[in-house]
Amino acid sequence: MERSAHPTPVSEPLPGSRRTYLTGPDGALRVPMREVPLSNGDAVVLYDTSGPYTDPDVLVDVRQGLAPARAAWIEARGDTVATGTRPARRALPGRAVTQLGYARRGEITREMEFVAVREGLDPEFVRAEIAAGRAVLPANVNHPESEPMAIGRNFLVKINANIGNSVVASSIEEEVEKMVWATRWGADTVMDLSTGRDIHTTREWILRNSPVPVGTVPIYEALEKAGGRAEDLSWELYRDTVIEQAEQGVDYMTVHAGVLLRHVPLTAHRRTGIVSRGGAILAAWCLAHHEENFLYTHFAELCEILRGYDVTFSLGDGLRPGSIADANDAAQLAELATLGELTTIAWEHDVQVMIEGPGHVPLHKIKENVDLQRELCHDAPFYTLGPLTTDIAPGYDHITSAIGAALIGWHGTAMLCYVTPKEHLGLPDRDDVKAGVIAYKIAAHAADLAKGHPGAQAWDDALSQARFDFRWTDQFHLALDPETAQAFHDETLPAAPAKSAHFCSMCGPHFCSMKITRDVRRHADEQGLASADAVEAGLRAKAAEFTAAGSRLYLPVPATPDGPAPAEPQT
Amino acid sequence: MERSAHPTPVSEPLPGSRRTYLTGPDGALRVPMREVPLSNGDAVVLYDTSGPYTDPDVLVDVRQGLAPARAAWIEARGDTVATGTRPARRALPGRAVTQLGYARRGEITREMEFVAVREGLDPEFVRAEIAAGRAVLPANVNHPESEPMAIGRNFLVKINANIGNSVVASSIEEEVEKMVWATRWGADTVMDLSTGRDIHTTREWILRNSPVPVGTVPIYEALEKAGGRAEDLSWELYRDTVIEQAEQGVDYMTVHAGVLLRHVPLTAHRRTGIVSRGGAILAAWCLAHHEENFLYTHFAELCEILRGYDVTFSLGDGLRPGSIADANDAAQLAELATLGELTTIAWEHDVQVMIEGPGHVPLHKIKENVDLQRELCHDAPFYTLGPLTTDIAPGYDHITSAIGAALIGWHGTAMLCYVTPKEHLGLPDRDDVKAGVIAYKIAAHAADLAKGHPGAQAWDDALSQARFDFRWTDQFHLALDPETAQAFHDETLPAAPAKSAHFCSMCGPHFCSMKITRDVRRHADEQGLASADAVEAGLRAKAAEFTAAGSRLYLPVPATPDGPAPAEPQT
Repeated sequence: MERSAHPTPVSEPLPGSRRTYLTGPDGALRVPMREVPLSNGDAVVLYDTSGPYTDPDVLVDVRQGLAPARAAWIEARGDTVATGTRPARRALPGRAVTQLGYARRGEITREMEFVAVREGLDPEFVRAEIAAGRAVLPANVNHPESEPMAIGRNFLVKINANIGNSVVASSIEEEVEKMVWATRWGADTVMDLSTGRDIHTTREWILRNSPVPVGTVPIYEALEKAGGRAEDLSWELYRDTVIEQAEQGVDYMTVHAGVLLRHVPLTAHRRTGIVSRGGAILAAWCLAHHEENFLYTHFAELCEILRGYDVTFSLGDGLRPGSIADANDAAQLAELATLGELTTIAWEHDVQVMIEGPGHVPLHKIKENVDLQRELCHDAPFYTLGPLTTDIAPGYDHITSAIGAALIGWHGTAMLCYVTPKEHLGLPDRDDVKAGVIAYKIAAHAADLAKGHPGAQAWDDALSQARFDFRWTDQFHLALDPETAQAFHDETLPAAPAKSAHFCSMCGPHFCSMKITRDVRRHADEQGLASADAVEAGLRAKAAEFTAAGSRLYLPVPATPDGPAPAEPQT
Repeated sequence: MERSAHPTPVSEPLPGSRRTYLTGPDGALRVPMREVPLSNGDAVVLYDTSGPYTDPDVLVDVRQGLAPARAAWIEARGDTVATGTRPARRALPGRAVTQLGYARRGEITREMEFVAVREGLDPEFVRAEIAAGRAVLPANVNHPESEPMAIGRNFLVKINANIGNSVVASSIEEEVEKMVWATRWGADTVMDLSTGRDIHTTREWILRNSPVPVGTVPIYEALEKAGGRAEDLSWELYRDTVIEQAEQGVDYMTVHAGVLLRHVPLTAHRRTGIVSRGGAILAAWCLAHHEENFLYTHFAELCEILRGYDVTFSLGDGLRPGSIADANDAAQLAELATLGELTTIAWEHDVQVMIEGPGHVPLHKIKENVDLQRELCHDAPFYTLGPLTTDIAPGYDHITSAIGAALIGWHGTAMLCYVTPKEHLGLPDRDDVKAGVIAYKIAAHAADLAKGHPGAQAWDDALSQARFDFRWTDQFHLALDPETAQAFHDETLPAAPAKSAHFCSMCGPHFCSMKITRDVRRHADEQGLASADAVEAGLRAKAAEFTAAGSRLYLPVPATPDGPAPAEPQT
């Protein structure tokens, strides 16, 4: 691998957090988590996607790449062989080295154990979900640097961040930096959507340094190879590109095999036609040749290739709506039905599958979308782009789409592809990537709460308790973005004493409702009263005393908090 | 009114917009709208809250205040008299000068006509909604500067921006500037929540310069008068404060009359107790005196006062949840039931009512909240703060809450109180106010789309059409925030030619899916084909020609757009 000198991405734990590792039942696993020690002696342990970059004991040299932690597991299974010039691993003839294959054969892999520890679930549950096709565990045998994670409606809702250069802007270094940055804030996977020069090299750098699964859209590179001429694409060119990427370690690939010739005319009178790049490329190919999409006609062959590396299908929605007007229309739903057929074929080959979804969908059509996907695609995990719930706010589409993402996540979408503020307008920079990731972590967590995911609410409870106790620093450290939380507080009340103040800038010392609530609670507690009537009796006796006490505006916060902050793994 | 020299807020129309006025059937009204002329000769007309500040023909001097446009209508009704030292108007004895009173008597006021034109509705429909209590039209006779607007589930979803200084920071000038700024970006009402010095003067400046209804929470000023001691509050002190504010022109007042003594103990074991300032103050008063909340015991008297000025009740949710853990709990619902009783009493006095709501609510409890409010409060308009759908993201609560706001708006909430990124952390500055307003305009419009509000989608359609046609400048001008949209595009593609480019920075010229869609459409159109089969036949004939054409990547955009952009008033 050709690599120029490049500075290691400087990365420390988030403020107030430290790296901790959980171990599996037999002590063989090291599952990284983010631990937030609190000032009251408790600690909150959170899911962590940031990989070794936030472990001060690990020195990452991006020229060397991350340690291939999964390599020993893969080798131990004895069903792959190193071949070619890289060398890359590939399944022995006839072997299905996919997590779906193992799960169906009743085998709980190390990867599944890792996921079970990471999400606080039973390993057998993880296996069963994968075996049923309701979850995927993207884990190419050639990407041993990745930390196993699962995508499925019965797991924590995941988010993806798109990175990748284009003809117009950005460099390899910037893309690696963006990957580290996106995972630092919580991206569960990244997609490398590069379309410009150096696609292969950019991808190699990202893969060797990525602790999360990496997805691609191979048609982009194939089109580069075809000189940008869609009609010059061919199955052979595409196949070779897929093999090249699979050997590099790409964990999942977007494949627009559902864009059929007969679907294309259904888009002709849409408000915004075809907005998926991959969908448009294949539509153009179909039109030029007047032949059926070669990804559809060669789908079984593609399955055989992907099975050899455990590449997961992300069946692309090439005909997704690009505007509110086009949501849930005939083109979109016709393609979705085709994706359901393809899901069955992939499963017959033991290949893992998820299904991509829109796009632009108004609130009232979101649930219908999920329900149709679930029905037509046999419960394969849904992976949606947003959706944006209105078209009128370019510059703020991380928000228009976080609204749709939260709702669609609640209704069962397993992974949410982020949208940045630059969507429709330009290429995201570092700040945009962070803004997109944070907005989507909010959406995903809101969905986890609504789905009642075990442990999800403990994070909210710990933060709210810190807020109520005026433990300002704990509140900052527990925030999704500790840096911004503290910076915003500093703007109004920068002095250090304000971080332990029993009031805040919004109300000032005289109006603090949290403070008054403490008085309410103290009275109730002192009386030991359960019912409103009983409280009334006690309060009558206390009224004079309360008035006499006078200085209630600065009552000390109890040394012991009202309830222990949760120490179990949470989201 | 004491006023120091103060610069007039400099304000121009948003980029690419101009002020236009609609007139009523008899030509007597001038209803301000924002018109966006497009490069193809069409124009889109949008609801506009920014008042005279964006009309280049009006020179606003904040020392003089806005023109009292409603004064002639109010005088013409002959049911009020100017009294006192200000002088302020008040109803003649026994007269109900409320929009509810007029509506019930079958009278369509000028204010109702104005709203009808503004929202493209039938005046009789507006009257009937107000008469039924399903909508309010906050319009104090002493705030003749306001442009009439309606809040109700069958109208466009409205948003409120909170402004107001506190002990800790900010000045009068800043607050007026914030009001102008908030309405520029779309705030339908503002609430002055000042708690520090100069409450009266700050409010006077805001009222005289505000084109939108102004709300307050009178208990804040009453507490200032009581030296910050909740137990020293009294009905008399509160009543005099309400009269003072009503005479100044406050259009709606938050009144925490539902915080009953028997409800207070229900909050004792909450995660975050009482988080409403007003609720906490009244709870403290109840505890100190062991008497029932004086706002509850004097509620009928309060109705008589408000009726004399047409001040609308915003019945406060003093016991709203302040965390996910406390959502939809017994305290909240007990208070909601009480607010329902009070609604009936207010209506008996012909006083307009809306009901305030939470706060912090996970996604799956939002609809239940609206449904309960509707049932318990007899369809009085719901006015919610967010709600925040998770507690874990301080610094981003405009997003956590825009998610909840969109959902609760869709389910029928009539007005959404914005939350800024500084919520829980500090006082919002100018940028935070804008961020909060934009996030809430997104939520409100997403809700309007989902409710199928007539005309709402036309805005999305016009913007998406501009996007599809590569009319970049039209796309910027139609954006909720034209400045940011253009600035983001400039970052990646600053050159002027890029504003008419038939590709964008995301995909570059080779990958433009919109471009390829045009080819699809052209083929379909040229064949004049309706069915997929027919298209297939045509395409077969066209395939060779398509390939031969070659330079399809830069096909000219048709001079005539595919469909006319809507020119009717839209949201």
